[in-house]
Amino acid sequence: MIEPRLQQQLAFLAEVDKMKSIFRQTLLIDRSRRENDAEHSWHFALAAMVLQEHGAPGLDMLRILKMALTHDLVEVYAGDTFAYDEAGYLDKAAREAAAAKKLFALLPKEQSAEFSRLWKEFEAGATREAAYANAIDRIQPFLNNALTGGYTWKKGHVRKEQVYARMAPVKDFLPALWDFVRETIEKYAQEGAFSE
Amino acid sequence: MIEPRLQQQLAFLAEVDKMKSIFRQTLLIDRSRRENDAEHSWHFALAAMVLQEHGAPGLDMLRILKMALTHDLVEVYAGDTFAYDEAGYLDKAAREAAAAKKLFALLPKEQSAEFSRLWKEFEAGATREAAYANAIDRIQPFLNNALTGGYTWKKGHVRKEQVYARMAPVKDFLPALWDFVRETIEKYAQEGAFSE
Repeated sequence: MIEPRLQQQLAFLAEVDKMKSIFRQTLLIDRSRRENDAEHSWHFALAAMVLQEHGAPGLDMLRILKMALTHDLVEVYAGDTFAYDEAGYLDKAAREAAAAKKLFALLPKEQSAEFSRLWKEFEAGATREAAYANAIDRIQPFLNNALTGGYTWKKGHVRKEQVYARMAPVKDFLPALWDFVRETIEKYAQEGAFSE
Repeated sequence: MIEPRLQQQLAFLAEVDKMKSIFRQTLLIDRSRRENDAEHSWHFALAAMVLQEHGAPGLDMLRILKMALTHDLVEVYAGDTFAYDEAGYLDKAAREAAAAKKLFALLPKEQSAEFSRLWKEFEAGATREAAYANAIDRIQPFLNNALTGGYTWKKGHVRKEQVYARMAPVKDFLPALWDFVRETIEKYAQEGAFSE
């Protein structure tokens, strides 16, 4: 006999398996295919561990890892919105809020509230932990892009200024990585990777 | 100018992108393909969060999530060894120790030591955190197997006793999930999913 609370948790864990089939624009570094949300979330969490010393001192790393693991769960129902898709961003918040409500409702009540809080904290970016997490969330695909010939930028006809704007959280909350970001963008700009 | 320490960290994060191309025997729940190590590590970490109440009280969840994120990194060089591959298990420890040494050497020294410690703690399973992590590492593929017609067990000609032995950490460290495990195994046994 499996108690109802555990049944809810197992049903949730089964449902989020769909994260493995939601594809982003980012390529794997071997360029074999696009990356999915589960892979991105793992790589993001690992990067948060590895780059911790470059963030603000005294960050609550447990909350950061929890945000990394859960920040894209809403895409199970809302799908991935390309970072430079301005039309897609118009209704992104509404689509994702509806998805969060539906998905987290699978969990027992107080866990549903915890997952919802973590997701809202990440989205708002207002705490130190969420600011760091947002910066890492930008660096992970940037690294893959830097190592795959700027694939996403070329394919999306992205302008250099858009990339600088997208990467602003890194300048603010991971300043030690800014030289890497700036040098990469300028190198790709010289090669003509960006749209005018 | 990117400082050498950061260069090491970025090189490590690029190298472990290969986790996304190391495939396990487990199927995705939609049965579209096999799961890879990055996806498994993410699903494992998320399951550790969701099922925490069923583990021992007072677990250090940060160390558990770090183990979840890093426990399979050695497979970047050592490859995945199927859980029921008895021949593969003969030299698994030696292959993985060599892989750990090579991979973690990419990181700055004290981070290399931290990653090595986390991996060894998980492998030994001797701390409360590692015991819980091991139990979750068994439950995640078990859940996918339960929902994909026992695919891995059938394909691997696995015996029922092997599954019970493999799942023993769940009985010990996630006892609230044992009914789910036992009922699932017995259901599949009745359907003839296991080898004699």
